[in-house]
Amino acid sequence: MNITKPHLFINKQIVSENITRMKNLALNAGVSFRPHFKTHRNTQIAEIFKQHGITKITVSSLTMAETFANAGFKDITIAFPFNILEIEKLKTTQQISKINLLVESLFTLQFLSKYLEKKTDIFIKIDSGYHRTGINPNNISEIEKLVEICIQSQTLNFIGFLMHAGHTYKAKSKQEILEIHKHSELIAGNLKTKFPEAIVSIGDTPSCSIAKSFNNIDEIRPGNFVYYDIMQLQLGSCKFENIAAIVACPVVAIHQHRNEIVIYGGGVHLSKEQLTINNKPYFGAVCLYNEENRKFQILEHSFLTSLSQEHGIVKMHSQFIEKINPGDIIGIAPVHICMIPLIENSSDFTIQ
Amino acid sequence: MNITKPHLFINKQIVSENITRMKNLALNAGVSFRPHFKTHRNTQIAEIFKQHGITKITVSSLTMAETFANAGFKDITIAFPFNILEIEKLKTTQQISKINLLVESLFTLQFLSKYLEKKTDIFIKIDSGYHRTGINPNNISEIEKLVEICIQSQTLNFIGFLMHAGHTYKAKSKQEILEIHKHSELIAGNLKTKFPEAIVSIGDTPSCSIAKSFNNIDEIRPGNFVYYDIMQLQLGSCKFENIAAIVACPVVAIHQHRNEIVIYGGGVHLSKEQLTINNKPYFGAVCLYNEENRKFQILEHSFLTSLSQEHGIVKMHSQFIEKINPGDIIGIAPVHICMIPLIENSSDFTIQ
Repeated sequence: MNITKPHLFINKQIVSENITRMKNLALNAGVSFRPHFKTHRNTQIAEIFKQHGITKITVSSLTMAETFANAGFKDITIAFPFNILEIEKLKTTQQISKINLLVESLFTLQFLSKYLEKKTDIFIKIDSGYHRTGINPNNISEIEKLVEICIQSQTLNFIGFLMHAGHTYKAKSKQEILEIHKHSELIAGNLKTKFPEAIVSIGDTPSCSIAKSFNNIDEIRPGNFVYYDIMQLQLGSCKFENIAAIVACPVVAIHQHRNEIVIYGGGVHLSKEQLTINNKPYFGAVCLYNEENRKFQILEHSFLTSLSQEHGIVKMHSQFIEKINPGDIIGIAPVHICMIPLIENSSDFTIQ
Repeated sequence: MNITKPHLFINKQIVSENITRMKNLALNAGVSFRPHFKTHRNTQIAEIFKQHGITKITVSSLTMAETFANAGFKDITIAFPFNILEIEKLKTTQQISKINLLVESLFTLQFLSKYLEKKTDIFIKIDSGYHRTGINPNNISEIEKLVEICIQSQTLNFIGFLMHAGHTYKAKSKQEILEIHKHSELIAGNLKTKFPEAIVSIGDTPSCSIAKSFNNIDEIRPGNFVYYDIMQLQLGSCKFENIAAIVACPVVAIHQHRNEIVIYGGGVHLSKEQLTINNKPYFGAVCLYNEENRKFQILEHSFLTSLSQEHGIVKMHSQFIEKINPGDIIGIAPVHICMIPLIENSSDFTIQ
């Protein structure tokens, strides 16, 4: 294959290993595995999940639910507060797949109670500490109000609670991730005391990759683990060899006097998601590409320091720069793979 | 029109006014106007430029050059260091349009000299202080080497120098932008003393929006001005009423106790480009949407404080939150419009 512009490579074998590992973890922990498809957003990768026997999935938009319902998935949770403006599209999608909804607002739940036609499983979103969405787990009266609406309704079937400990992404150590996870288990336990029939679903890849126990948890919904990325590597969720997605970028200019090369690969390909490492912005790791075996190998002390629309600036040691010419290909392991726009454009990626 | 998910609105009248203003500025300054199409990347917006008599354009990739060549533009500068891996595609595109190239490297220029078949105008990239790409303007011997290769070549026609003062985006005041621009004028003057036949082209929207003189400059290539955005507003390049692109987003949750609403609109729609205002991250301004006249009005003291993949968190005053319900639509004026992925998906935007 002839790479001439930014191109995403997905290593199918690593994807398969990542799925196997997470599936076995769920199996051993006795929890249900409902992977989040927001990371790959791709029906070819969905097929690999199918080969692993995965039938129940999570998505983060109704548009995605529709895509994967059409791809044969018949039990889909939309882990995003239901957007009432999409009620008609929901009804259409419910004709081809079981769709489970997430709510946190009385207003939305009353709306659903009025307009839903099909019996629908409802998760109540609980804020386990990330403070993005969800009800405070101590606000039992608010939760009871929502559960009561479901009980009174012909169509709303309250099934349980959904949490996403997104604050693990800001953790400074594995220990901190484990503490956040322990807190999620505690919240789950408390909720189950009050609502014994409810199931509890949790979601983030760092917790699911690092935790050893899942007390009071019934279901896990990690997404990022399918590819992993540099953020997960930093958090300790994975090793470099578990990273399945690398963006190959042509070198277009070399500035040896400042140890920089310029690549064709910018924010429109890699997103502007960044880490701060040693007080400096960091947009991705640099890998050398071996055209023969199509493998990438990480290049130490080399990283993407800046991104504009189409340009990326890579800092690397002078001894490597000497060997590089315009027209060479280097690999970038992205900071946060879920965010990269390239992933949507199937003409710019290859599953190896 | 029924908005149910993140949707980009382009106000055609404002686009037209922005083009007229920049075109007249170029006319009055006696410089050539070659707008950069990397911001809109859209053939419908290109048609508006055509109606204003614009025939010569700038793009930042060969892919874009191909798109606009097919849309009828027959004189296109690719303001990105030429990527030698795309030589075959370049030759194909040169069959339908004049393509002007940018180089800064001996290696690339020698490659072009060997493989180009058609006589091609060549710009040498000069680093005017942004330090992304380009040759130091004081490195006359390096510049002379490149010019010499063009002179010896049958196909390479050295036409002049191209600069992009991207450091204006980091400026703290209009005065600082004017100083950067003055430095560009100075560099241009020095280059013309050495290379009297060369033209000099400059590019950034802040300089082109704020400067009053264009001494020693022959051509301007602003792009962002067609829509403008919050970054340009902060820099003083435009007023709010000059912003032509707003993303309409459904409200999906309300957290009145922390003055927050959650919108369906995340990094995959708006990009993660951010400003820091009052030491806090800032991802966009909030506008209220009037469905009847389809106009957006800025809401003071309200802004997008965080973005994940599909969620946006908006902080606003409690008095406004009281009036908002899930299912309402609010507008987000993006930080950096050139970067937003939504712009690529024509099914998710409307030109009013």
